[in-house]
Amino acid sequence: MTHKLDFYFDFSSPYGYLASTRVGQLAEKYDAEVVWHPFLLGAVFKLTNTVPLIDQLLKSDYFLRDVPRTARRYGVPFKLPDRFPFGTVTSCRAFYFVAETDPVGAVRLAQALFHAAFGEGRDVCPVEAVAAIAEEAGFDGQALAAGIQSQPVKELLKAEVDEAIRRKVFGSPFFFADGEPFWGDDRIDQIDQWFATGGW
Amino acid sequence: MTHKLDFYFDFSSPYGYLASTRVGQLAEKYDAEVVWHPFLLGAVFKLTNTVPLIDQLLKSDYFLRDVPRTARRYGVPFKLPDRFPFGTVTSCRAFYFVAETDPVGAVRLAQALFHAAFGEGRDVCPVEAVAAIAEEAGFDGQALAAGIQSQPVKELLKAEVDEAIRRKVFGSPFFFADGEPFWGDDRIDQIDQWFATGGW
Repeated sequence: MTHKLDFYFDFSSPYGYLASTRVGQLAEKYDAEVVWHPFLLGAVFKLTNTVPLIDQLLKSDYFLRDVPRTARRYGVPFKLPDRFPFGTVTSCRAFYFVAETDPVGAVRLAQALFHAAFGEGRDVCPVEAVAAIAEEAGFDGQALAAGIQSQPVKELLKAEVDEAIRRKVFGSPFFFADGEPFWGDDRIDQIDQWFATGGW
Repeated sequence: MTHKLDFYFDFSSPYGYLASTRVGQLAEKYDAEVVWHPFLLGAVFKLTNTVPLIDQLLKSDYFLRDVPRTARRYGVPFKLPDRFPFGTVTSCRAFYFVAETDPVGAVRLAQALFHAAFGEGRDVCPVEAVAAIAEEAGFDGQALAAGIQSQPVKELLKAEVDEAIRRKVFGSPFFFADGEPFWGDDRIDQIDQWFATGGW
């Protein structure tokens, strides 16, 4: 691997979803290692006293237009779930539970969860929903539903959230491309160029 | 003119400055009419209870890195003025004072003000500073300093701010490309594609 891309995102972030459909191509193009870091953006918002885009006056209309428009541009499906924003503790823990033994599988699970939430507009909040999506993606849903209650998994997530705050990750998606911070799905073009040129 | 681009910006917005260096090329490429709309983002922030990026915890470090990085990418000069963010009532009024009789000249003045503020890091807040920059750009600074006190000019600016809020312009830069809203300097690529394809 010649490059490393840290990919921070919240499972409830539509722009995180959009980015998740594109990081794979970037990784292939530059033989980059992508490390997926689901975290809880709500913990950061509490710190920064920010509210989700959808709750912000004036911004929400734009947001509801920009996300589907950008999805159409990329040619990826988009459907906003009825419950939005939604809690993502379960999805995050499911990711870290799988990642402990199968990091590649964890990425596949994250993609399945993102696709269910924003490609199909499904409710991915309850444990049963996350377990069902995991089953569809080839995982043992029952083992997963039990595993995400374990203390080590809870602590893995907590450590990731703390680390995200330490690295000043204030939004989703947020990237470190060979250590250089980039915020937003719309910075992927710059990351591409950063890898291509070594920075400027 | 086959296309119309409304370009809303605050003179204190570095991303507005970055965009101002690029809208001309876009206009040429598509024979688009660009209408420059300086307004007071502070009035919107008061409404939305938002604080400038620089004042936001966690975000400010990123912002101070992203803006110069993007400027280098575009090959445009960037220097953050010591006083930032700064009041822009005078710059806005100067724009509308000139625009009343010379719309093309007003754009030239806006470019000169943006360049002084963010290309050279000069203080463009006081009337004397705005008048001096206007002089350098070939305008009568004394006439301008007097003219911006006139009631019609004040009302022109107020009407633009009201119109910006009515159109839900919540940030800077903000565009309407043939009526379609786009937020952010980083949406210029999408605007380019929007004009090229007629939308998607």
